[in-house]
Amino acid sequence: MTPPTPIVRLAELQIDPAQRETYLALLREEIEASIRLEPGVLTLNAVALKDAPDQIRLMEIYADQRAYEAHLKSAHFTKYKNATAGMVTSLTLRETVPIALRGKR
Amino acid sequence: MTPPTPIVRLAELQIDPAQRETYLALLREEIEASIRLEPGVLTLNAVALKDAPDQIRLMEIYADQRAYEAHLKSAHFTKYKNATAGMVTSLTLRETVPIALRGKR
Repeated sequence: MTPPTPIVRLAELQIDPAQRETYLALLREEIEASIRLEPGVLTLNAVALKDAPDQIRLMEIYADQRAYEAHLKSAHFTKYKNATAGMVTSLTLRETVPIALRGKR
Repeated sequence: MTPPTPIVRLAELQIDPAQRETYLALLREEIEASIRLEPGVLTLNAVALKDAPDQIRLMEIYADQRAYEAHLKSAHFTKYKNATAGMVTSLTLRETVPIALRGKR
């Protein structure tokens, strides 16, 4: 019994320090909505680097490619993208191949 | 009701390509043992970059500092560290501040 391989994406963002708190509120809102409303959004983990708090790192896990594409078209993601466009000074998206994705049930 | 803030660490590793498969088997074994045996190890997600498969990225979530320190002393982590010492050509550990850690229950 092999479940379909999920899509895991890493995002590395640099945020305008003057708008950091506003950005974080919008990011948290987007994450909450995605997990609540989208069955195919499995995990959204966002952290800031301790020694560079304007550097944000996300690990995003989607059930499959279709779930990822649906997420990109969702109303809450569109709102987040538009609202934060002037706050994100750098964005790098990295596609990955999962090795092991394990957590407590 | 605010649960204690978990510890989230990011690890960026470069692996000797000639030993990649052996390294991945040891990493998977270590992840499985940690999740199974350690109540304070909440999540261990490991991926390879799609365009640079010798670049490994880990997101590790521990219940608290004590759980993280216990993990470092565990028999399975010690075995992994010793067995892979000659396979890891670069290792960067990043401490983080969690922003949002959300997944399906």
